[in-house]
Amino acid sequence: MDSVLRQSKAMCPFLKAASPATLRALSTSARPKPSPCGGTMSKLQVLGHRCPVMGKAMAVQSARAGAVATGLRAFSGQPKTGKARIHTSGLQEARTADGPIIEARENVRRALGHNGGSIDKFNYEGFYTTELDKKHKDKSYRYFNNINRLAKEFPRAHMANKDERVTVWCANDYLGMGRNKRVLNTMKETLDEYGAGAGGTRNISGHNRHAVELENTLAKLHAKEAALIFSSCYVANDATLATLGSKMPDCVILSDSLNHASMIQGIRHSGTKKVVFKHNDVADLEAKLASLPLHVPKIIAFESVYSMCGSIGPIEGICDLADKYGAITFLDEVHAVGMYGPNGAGVAEHLDWEAHQKGSTRDTIMDRIDIITGTLGKAYGCVGGYIAGSGKLVDMIRSLAPGFIFTTSLPPATMAGAKASIEYQMEYDDDRKLQQLHTRAVKEELNNRDIPVIPNPSHIIPILVGNAELAKAASDMLLQDYQIYVQSINYPTVPVGQERLRITPTPGHTKEYRDELVEAVDQIWTRLGIKRTSQWAAEGGFIGVGEQGKVEEPLWTDGQLGIEQATKEMKANGRPDGSFTEALLEREGSNATRLAGRVAAR
Amino acid sequence: MDSVLRQSKAMCPFLKAASPATLRALSTSARPKPSPCGGTMSKLQVLGHRCPVMGKAMAVQSARAGAVATGLRAFSGQPKTGKARIHTSGLQEARTADGPIIEARENVRRALGHNGGSIDKFNYEGFYTTELDKKHKDKSYRYFNNINRLAKEFPRAHMANKDERVTVWCANDYLGMGRNKRVLNTMKETLDEYGAGAGGTRNISGHNRHAVELENTLAKLHAKEAALIFSSCYVANDATLATLGSKMPDCVILSDSLNHASMIQGIRHSGTKKVVFKHNDVADLEAKLASLPLHVPKIIAFESVYSMCGSIGPIEGICDLADKYGAITFLDEVHAVGMYGPNGAGVAEHLDWEAHQKGSTRDTIMDRIDIITGTLGKAYGCVGGYIAGSGKLVDMIRSLAPGFIFTTSLPPATMAGAKASIEYQMEYDDDRKLQQLHTRAVKEELNNRDIPVIPNPSHIIPILVGNAELAKAASDMLLQDYQIYVQSINYPTVPVGQERLRITPTPGHTKEYRDELVEAVDQIWTRLGIKRTSQWAAEGGFIGVGEQGKVEEPLWTDGQLGIEQATKEMKANGRPDGSFTEALLEREGSNATRLAGRVAAR
Repeated sequence: MDSVLRQSKAMCPFLKAASPATLRALSTSARPKPSPCGGTMSKLQVLGHRCPVMGKAMAVQSARAGAVATGLRAFSGQPKTGKARIHTSGLQEARTADGPIIEARENVRRALGHNGGSIDKFNYEGFYTTELDKKHKDKSYRYFNNINRLAKEFPRAHMANKDERVTVWCANDYLGMGRNKRVLNTMKETLDEYGAGAGGTRNISGHNRHAVELENTLAKLHAKEAALIFSSCYVANDATLATLGSKMPDCVILSDSLNHASMIQGIRHSGTKKVVFKHNDVADLEAKLASLPLHVPKIIAFESVYSMCGSIGPIEGICDLADKYGAITFLDEVHAVGMYGPNGAGVAEHLDWEAHQKGSTRDTIMDRIDIITGTLGKAYGCVGGYIAGSGKLVDMIRSLAPGFIFTTSLPPATMAGAKASIEYQMEYDDDRKLQQLHTRAVKEELNNRDIPVIPNPSHIIPILVGNAELAKAASDMLLQDYQIYVQSINYPTVPVGQERLRITPTPGHTKEYRDELVEAVDQIWTRLGIKRTSQWAAEGGFIGVGEQGKVEEPLWTDGQLGIEQATKEMKANGRPDGSFTEALLEREGSNATRLAGRVAAR
Repeated sequence: MDSVLRQSKAMCPFLKAASPATLRALSTSARPKPSPCGGTMSKLQVLGHRCPVMGKAMAVQSARAGAVATGLRAFSGQPKTGKARIHTSGLQEARTADGPIIEARENVRRALGHNGGSIDKFNYEGFYTTELDKKHKDKSYRYFNNINRLAKEFPRAHMANKDERVTVWCANDYLGMGRNKRVLNTMKETLDEYGAGAGGTRNISGHNRHAVELENTLAKLHAKEAALIFSSCYVANDATLATLGSKMPDCVILSDSLNHASMIQGIRHSGTKKVVFKHNDVADLEAKLASLPLHVPKIIAFESVYSMCGSIGPIEGICDLADKYGAITFLDEVHAVGMYGPNGAGVAEHLDWEAHQKGSTRDTIMDRIDIITGTLGKAYGCVGGYIAGSGKLVDMIRSLAPGFIFTTSLPPATMAGAKASIEYQMEYDDDRKLQQLHTRAVKEELNNRDIPVIPNPSHIIPILVGNAELAKAASDMLLQDYQIYVQSINYPTVPVGQERLRITPTPGHTKEYRDELVEAVDQIWTRLGIKRTSQWAAEGGFIGVGEQGKVEEPLWTDGQLGIEQATKEMKANGRPDGSFTEALLEREGSNATRLAGRVAAR
């Protein structure tokens, strides 16, 4: 093998430049975040496949290996289902020269093994089985829970059995807009008038007033020149980043390390250079920007609310860096639209509350963002995704992105419903305020009980479990014993060791539901012996839990929630026992109770 | 430049092996089908970017070019908006060494030009403008028509102005299921009961009885073990091919040359080897399969009905080849589901009509297909896509495909509506039969008038125009002067020179609409002087039009349509003047009129 390496080094400037340690690391290490597509390849193989020389050589070798096997069979007169010994030797022979494709060969061999030892044809079913076995083995195999969210009993749902009720505590219909009367009525009227489907792509009979009006509403919401709707925000992110990254010459995409899979895929599909910066680390981002030539096009791709930990991106800092280094900003507000800001436009809007409330959007942080992406499927309660930006940008994506061009438009009723939902949230901010108060109340109660909430300033409540099987057990137990549905979040959605329960309160999670949840979680933590905050603290803390001085002020301030006065008064009278926010929510005649009353009445 | 090439050849085995002619072709030729993402790069650049050596070198060179420019500015004390001469010389200097990235540099330069001559930062808006200018220049810039299809006046629609009515002749709601009462009522009931959106991904609160039931229905429809729903069939094709191609070691994907963009993207995203075979050419496919080692995993990706020309894939022949060469088959039935076969399962089902009618699916052609993909957004009138296949295959895609995992589920009402639509089409075949009769009638009438219909055995009626501007003019004229909406199909959806109008009749296109259409097309062909069939024939014919002996028998036989007897009788009495099928459709008490009566009544 050493002589092969020496030979290769003489030929290949890449191998020449790489140290033996690097090569070893590349060929043996698992990927830090295994790619959802292609987890079977080592990093070196990935590089090898990209190389015009090695890629070809690898293909030739596969062909040779096949020819050897076929030749052997022909020579020995073996029937299709020949003896295993011969096949093994055929494969062994091929393997000695295979080097970087040993792992791939191994997979083939394993797959072939399932085929009763025949090596003539690839055993597809065997291969699928092997891939599924891997998922079972590393506990990442997913079992879906059958959850039927009931519009008239929000936030309740029935299971497969219609009589079996559970309370849903992990949906992304954050505000319950999925059962909002105005939304549902609009959708039903649109169904009657315009039918179930759009009937075509945007170019061929699928463009209509619903698309025009929804895009106008979205552009207005984000104070941008234009917007464009996609089947989902997964598609919006994928298509937009892939198109921009592949079209702009020498483009570099700088990507937050916790970015969503849709952005990671979009960047991969662009085929352009990707630079990952540390999560929310402006200094790291600046170092990486500074190392790139000023004139080169750069996209900084990041999120406002990171869904699995609830952290919030340093939007203004990133805008400053973008200006300084000639980059554009690509901000995913998927978990923030409808939830933050005086109009529900997201965190970027929230950061200039007063300006946006007055309707003056110029030179605000939101104004400085080049591309905002969002969803109609979470706080807005429907389905679909979009981008908003300059007229030229949107027109270019509209004209070039295959994921936009070659797909059926969203149904008219979906678009009309989403528009009604956005407008409703522009008109009323009660739902998102009440949602924030419920979030505060649950976080406080859980903290009071030493339950390890990962601190963050947003509406997401991640509770650290730190073990895949425990997290699933806790989720299953909540469902079976307490009729509470909170999906466990395991690898690969979060890193191994950071498994968690992710709780998402809504305006519909009234006190009885909150009490039930907190009590159930507390009991389960005891029953399963899951670590509490104090235990994490004793070990020095972990990802914010039990770390000293790790208190995150909520993004929605007391002033914005209209509880400043009540809070002052309550504090003057001495803090109540238990949760401060629970007391606030029960305080007669307060803004909080008026809020709850209005939401319940609509 | 020659010395650079000599040096490079000494270093790079790829350049060494490539002939100068190949290199020249790679660096200058436009791509045969310009990729929607990345049209600005030559093939050589694309290869260069993939090479770990050249890719790096290209990045370093960009950096150097930037440094030179910046250095120049610093040295000469030029302000940001320095004189054009200096910038030009800076760029010129960089360009002499650039070689393969000249074109990319050119784009930057053009983009920078829009920035008032400053070269310090990339001019994004300028770049977008340049890209859009290209689309305007080659006439591929798309103007969307605002078409609002009216459920109660199908196939009529209103334009932006609600009073302005047009007849839609190009939607993919082929059967009018988008306005089907059972579908709409199911959707409205589901909206009331389960709300507007799913509220999460399939793994986190977005899995419900609607998903389970729809997937069961789809599996049953195609007689497969399992099915999986996606946001669209674009996503289904992309995600499935990308996942399979990237996971299976050394996988080769054999792709029909006319495959849809979604498959092309999926194959590209898989990063695996792609072999394109000539459209519907089984011999070419076999030659390509035979050149690959038997044991290597192979996917043959193709369609049943090709949407833009209406041709039908040789499904059985491809299944035979797949068996012989150890490949699996991936069949896109997007334009066929709901339209063919006794249950509406598509062309694969249609080919074994009697067997499927009896419910015996084993060893049928459909049974031999490994992966069927389809849409809920065309004949089924809703939105969404799916795959159907073996339990293991579907479970693997469910477990590994990011495009499935990380996106919000389709809304319950959409899934319930789609299920109702599929079941309706399993129960009644009147709609698709009437659609076929209307298709025959329109094709015959157009042929009688020497209008160049591209011959095919399916329900699509492509009319050859052969010029982008003429095709758009014809479409615009139809809309403005005749209130008929038929979108023109131009490059890149079809090759330059093959521009066409694509007409899709439905059961709702009754005689008055058909007469209007044929008359309008005939007039427009005269007004615009567009070539007729006889003219194409005089030139030897083109893509089937005016080619001798090019008659395609429709896939739906007279027997299957229940018009065998009537046809015999009519032929015995002498052929009617004009369209045979029109006469058949007017024949009192015939199966055809009964069919129309039943469809109108429901």
